[in-house]
Amino acid sequence: MKITPRTLKGFRDFLPESMIPRERLMETARRVYRSFGYSPIDTPALEYLEILSGKGGEESDRLMYHFEDHGGRKVGMRFDLTVPLARFAAQHINELGKPFKRYHLGPVWRGENTHRGRYREFIQCDFDTIGVKSAVSDLETGLVIHDLLQAIGFERFTIRVNDRRLLNGLLENLGLREQSAALLRALDKLGKIGPEKVAQEMMTVGGATQSQAEQVLQLASLSGDDASQLKQLAKLVGDSELGQAGVAGLEAVLQGARAAGVSTNCLQIDASIARGLDYYTGVIYETFLDDLPGIGSICSGGRYDNLAELYTKQELPGVGASLGLDRLLAAMEELGMLEKVGTPADVLLVYFSDAGLSDYLRLAAALREQGVGVELYPEAKKIGQQLRYADRRGFPAAIIAGDDELARRECQLKNMSSGESSTFPLDDPAAIAEAVKKCAAP
Amino acid sequence: MKITPRTLKGFRDFLPESMIPRERLMETARRVYRSFGYSPIDTPALEYLEILSGKGGEESDRLMYHFEDHGGRKVGMRFDLTVPLARFAAQHINELGKPFKRYHLGPVWRGENTHRGRYREFIQCDFDTIGVKSAVSDLETGLVIHDLLQAIGFERFTIRVNDRRLLNGLLENLGLREQSAALLRALDKLGKIGPEKVAQEMMTVGGATQSQAEQVLQLASLSGDDASQLKQLAKLVGDSELGQAGVAGLEAVLQGARAAGVSTNCLQIDASIARGLDYYTGVIYETFLDDLPGIGSICSGGRYDNLAELYTKQELPGVGASLGLDRLLAAMEELGMLEKVGTPADVLLVYFSDAGLSDYLRLAAALREQGVGVELYPEAKKIGQQLRYADRRGFPAAIIAGDDELARRECQLKNMSSGESSTFPLDDPAAIAEAVKKCAAP
Repeated sequence: MKITPRTLKGFRDFLPESMIPRERLMETARRVYRSFGYSPIDTPALEYLEILSGKGGEESDRLMYHFEDHGGRKVGMRFDLTVPLARFAAQHINELGKPFKRYHLGPVWRGENTHRGRYREFIQCDFDTIGVKSAVSDLETGLVIHDLLQAIGFERFTIRVNDRRLLNGLLENLGLREQSAALLRALDKLGKIGPEKVAQEMMTVGGATQSQAEQVLQLASLSGDDASQLKQLAKLVGDSELGQAGVAGLEAVLQGARAAGVSTNCLQIDASIARGLDYYTGVIYETFLDDLPGIGSICSGGRYDNLAELYTKQELPGVGASLGLDRLLAAMEELGMLEKVGTPADVLLVYFSDAGLSDYLRLAAALREQGVGVELYPEAKKIGQQLRYADRRGFPAAIIAGDDELARRECQLKNMSSGESSTFPLDDPAAIAEAVKKCAAP
Repeated sequence: MKITPRTLKGFRDFLPESMIPRERLMETARRVYRSFGYSPIDTPALEYLEILSGKGGEESDRLMYHFEDHGGRKVGMRFDLTVPLARFAAQHINELGKPFKRYHLGPVWRGENTHRGRYREFIQCDFDTIGVKSAVSDLETGLVIHDLLQAIGFERFTIRVNDRRLLNGLLENLGLREQSAALLRALDKLGKIGPEKVAQEMMTVGGATQSQAEQVLQLASLSGDDASQLKQLAKLVGDSELGQAGVAGLEAVLQGARAAGVSTNCLQIDASIARGLDYYTGVIYETFLDDLPGIGSICSGGRYDNLAELYTKQELPGVGASLGLDRLLAAMEELGMLEKVGTPADVLLVYFSDAGLSDYLRLAAALREQGVGVELYPEAKKIGQQLRYADRRGFPAAIIAGDDELARRECQLKNMSSGESSTFPLDDPAAIAEAVKKCAAP
């Protein structure tokens, strides 16, 4: 009796064709994070249950994988990278020093309802700056998102930036600060139910007057990329210190982005974005692809006041964001940005005969030294079969050196997409490498 | 009441100083694996318990983390990457095609006794070629190990190669094939208890005569890198087909290694290595650092006959090896090969005053375009404090541009190890980038 080979519902195998672009994307994220001075960290998949429970709200608790380990300890699998970061920062901040800039790429687990197309295991790609309240860190977060999307290959995207202090300042002015949760809940539905119904809900549930609801909606309607929005926002929040701080924060983000060369299309104010209710306290970011706005934000984050208050008395403010890897890959697939390849190597070296093996090995080693990835076919199968293998795997090029060619110290390089072949001296790996790279260039 | 921030016994936090070299090592492994045409895959952390249990022996079952999930399914956390590979190959081999060359880097979990210095969560870095019996794949496995260790920065290491068919052939000749398990168990103790006691055990437990025990020990004593060892091995295994296949296999490995430019010091026959009892059936590899032989093999593997027999009727032979990441990092630490750095960026840009912010942002963006990682300090703290931060983090360089320098469109580049400073035009990022790279060069 064989055991049926299968994966658990909501869990995925990644075959080379889907893993190659995933790995490339993660490497791009690491490279961009590093270029801003964020350092890698890692934390365990398992934590004491008391560290994890109650931290992500009731839903997280319900979805968390947890059990008793061999020593009778109650443990849970991390459901995000933020709670582990809070624990990590509380535990090590004195050793780490401030500012502490970290990135963390790793799997997290949630027993989600898979009917909604959700996965129970997925990778998060977070970066955060901990321990400073600086507006520079706020604006830098937007610059990282910008450089990241550019490095991935996107040109048409919009980073939408808002500041939670704007709305809070306005509500302070209106004497509605106490009702902010209900009002935010109503405002969050703006995209779905439209301004009239939102105003209705603000009045019935949030206790706002019609004029107050209109002012909140007016604030939320402001978006753009120049000084006029900032002026209108400043007028709306009036003399609320909180609101004015929000205006100053947005101004710093816009100015910083311009100084760093971010085009005005790519980063804009959008006073309607809210990003949940309680966690964020300052700048917030969402990022949309202009060609696929419907998939939602692919990179989101913001500033929070106190990361680790459950674990330490030290106040640890922070700002950061998280790249939505699965969503981004789905978008790239839909936009035709992913080439279907099943190999990370540049060239297949055809195995013609055992007599040639030493030459094949020598050539493969020499090409690798030139930075070219070479797969040597491991058996002397028919050339046609080996070339079909090269084609199926998506090799851009193949090298064929039969006994005759080897006797002449030559080899043939075949461009797998054009079908053209050219002859090279076997002992000039630099020339062969250059030609292979040309075949591999997009 | 605060919750104590702590990790579970046997689990580790990786702070930047330890994560930076780990991440670098994993990237090197990926790069080398890719250069031979191995493709990345990934599999879930959780599998159906029936997939995992009974596959790694009694000890694996005992150490496995397992529990019931939300849907009442019995699930386990993977304890290695080989069992998931077997399940994966059985499930997808028709789609994948053969040969299937994959690498897989990922965490695995075992509830080990931590008193022995073992971890309960660690990363495995495996590569395998599935679906072919080719001797070329056997020898290529040794080449990958060689290139990997060289790429990591090692010069003095020895890949020891053996073939299980040698001993099995000799035992066949001696009429001792039935007792091979007991004899291998005795032979495995050679390094610990010496040849005399091994011979004793072979006689008392394994049922060998003194002369037979001596022949087994003679086989195990053969090591080296030239034809004379092969001749002696051939003589010892006599006309056993299995044994002769083993000799031919070793010969192919040695010849292939020489053709690929591997020095004779780096790869040698060692007929004493055994690597466990049942799994391997052909070539086997172990790798030792010449300067730290005591830490044991840092990269091991070999050929096996049938990877996935529990899940499929298809015969899937394979060959591969696994890099011991933790052991290797411990060795590199001991050999002084790891620089202590707490940042992946090349230069700290000192924040002198808010008035300079736009210039800092512009310069940082320009330097990143030149391939230089720049961390901008986020606040206008005292320069001394910012430079101490740069020093503590291990930045090789710092850029200082005060208001006066900015007025002259200049900046100072400080080499953090020599303490020397030089002045550059602010608007020549290429020159600054080049100078930063010089400071960062080892």
